[in-house]
Amino acid sequence: MNKQELFEQIKKKKSFLCVGLDTDITKIPGHLHSCEDPVFEFNKAIIDATLPYTVAYKPNIAFYESRGAEGWISLEKTIKYLNEKAPEVFTIADAKRGDIGNTSKMYAKAFFENMNFDAITVAPYMGEDSVSPFLEYKSKWVILLALTSNKGASDFQLYRRDVSEALNRLGIRSVLPKRLFERVLQVSQQWGYVENMMYVVGATKAKYFAAVRQIVPYHFLLVPGVGAQGGSLEDVAKYGMNNQCGLLVNSSRGIIFASKEEDYAQVAGEKAREMQEKMEVLLKNRGLI
Amino acid sequence: MNKQELFEQIKKKKSFLCVGLDTDITKIPGHLHSCEDPVFEFNKAIIDATLPYTVAYKPNIAFYESRGAEGWISLEKTIKYLNEKAPEVFTIADAKRGDIGNTSKMYAKAFFENMNFDAITVAPYMGEDSVSPFLEYKSKWVILLALTSNKGASDFQLYRRDVSEALNRLGIRSVLPKRLFERVLQVSQQWGYVENMMYVVGATKAKYFAAVRQIVPYHFLLVPGVGAQGGSLEDVAKYGMNNQCGLLVNSSRGIIFASKEEDYAQVAGEKAREMQEKMEVLLKNRGLI
Repeated sequence: MNKQELFEQIKKKKSFLCVGLDTDITKIPGHLHSCEDPVFEFNKAIIDATLPYTVAYKPNIAFYESRGAEGWISLEKTIKYLNEKAPEVFTIADAKRGDIGNTSKMYAKAFFENMNFDAITVAPYMGEDSVSPFLEYKSKWVILLALTSNKGASDFQLYRRDVSEALNRLGIRSVLPKRLFERVLQVSQQWGYVENMMYVVGATKAKYFAAVRQIVPYHFLLVPGVGAQGGSLEDVAKYGMNNQCGLLVNSSRGIIFASKEEDYAQVAGEKAREMQEKMEVLLKNRGLI
Repeated sequence: MNKQELFEQIKKKKSFLCVGLDTDITKIPGHLHSCEDPVFEFNKAIIDATLPYTVAYKPNIAFYESRGAEGWISLEKTIKYLNEKAPEVFTIADAKRGDIGNTSKMYAKAFFENMNFDAITVAPYMGEDSVSPFLEYKSKWVILLALTSNKGASDFQLYRRDVSEALNRLGIRSVLPKRLFERVLQVSQQWGYVENMMYVVGATKAKYFAAVRQIVPYHFLLVPGVGAQGGSLEDVAKYGMNNQCGLLVNSSRGIIFASKEEDYAQVAGEKAREMQEKMEVLLKNRGLI
């Protein structure tokens, strides 16, 4: 899928919602456990109920991998179902992989060839040759971690204090060391382009969206952290939206586990619609629909 | 396994060799393809042949994941075989995972509970709460990426040039910005300790081993990059070895694919023995055996 197609879908559905399929088998309703593949049955019903309000789905690979080969089969069935039922939606393997070239190539095979995901999240720590094997696939996307939504983001991504403090003591304000996430955004633009790279920027880091948009004004951002983690959709839109929307805002637990009873799919659909309605207002305010 | 037990095994086998099971199904000898599980048969024979010379095995998860559920079954059989046949060896899931807390917890479950690996490689980009779920397991290890063996390591891990150059222009030499790998080594010591953390430091970065050992003198280092990637075992030992050895040097392709004929296991055994013999000399020179 290309950027224009994604934007068309956003305009059509009046939504930039991504539903995170973090399907924890211990949290799904009890009645599903009599099914042959409870996780797939759960995902299928969630997809059916949320599809009118959703432009992207993002299975979180850890929740499948934690169940071994069986989990892997649930994942394969889920992506197959998405590709058949809703070929127009954008599918993201939230895998956060990244390794030396010959190894990243194998991960790319797993998620792009075998399972036909549109995109994969990748960790940037190992640099260009760990990312480029994913970029060799036409019409596929790398979503690179830039500024994540968790507390630990400040350990390295936001860090520059040691140098800043030393410079302050010397009275020097003309040298401002770049933070790691800024360098990741800058350097990685030489690896791919707006048509095959997106960035993860957490909603809990809304005050940094302006800095992010200064470096990558045109890229799509995948934004986790709205909902359970406390980020604000309005702030994300205010500072992050561009003239092709440029945002995929993810919600996982807030939608898929909103009800843990037999009505889980219906409630998930309602929660997705609530998000979509808020997004419609934000897209209208921006004049995009 | 604890650190002392690992050291005892190193002394007993006179080796600090880790064999990387990067088992690419397209590279294994043709006659194995008639087996029910060619990858497992290959691994089994490699393990049997190299075990006398090897203290650790490191399956590279990408090579299994690229084959879907089937690959996952080969991986499960391989770790089960290792745990039964050679419970004394140290087993490493080379997975380079790392995500927000609830997700890292799932990866920990996959590799520590379901498969009983001793250790997993983890990417540090997302900081403490992405790593700590792995550290909650008693007698299990996190092997954190510090300075990797690939070219892209210089993109972020080694980077400090922008600030250094600006400071040089101002004639300031008293402020030396830390490189990312140094900060990772320093900060992560607050998360775990020498009994549950190791670090990946590539053999191709031998000139940095002194800097690494200044920050983490007592930790074990997992060292890829000897062999196919061009690193020198002698340099690694010279600058990296400590008084409990403190090194696990990995070789993958140089051992497991040394022959692609029916004699592959025998040749792998010979290659492992060659490495072990060199390591024995290095351990003796250091007075450890």
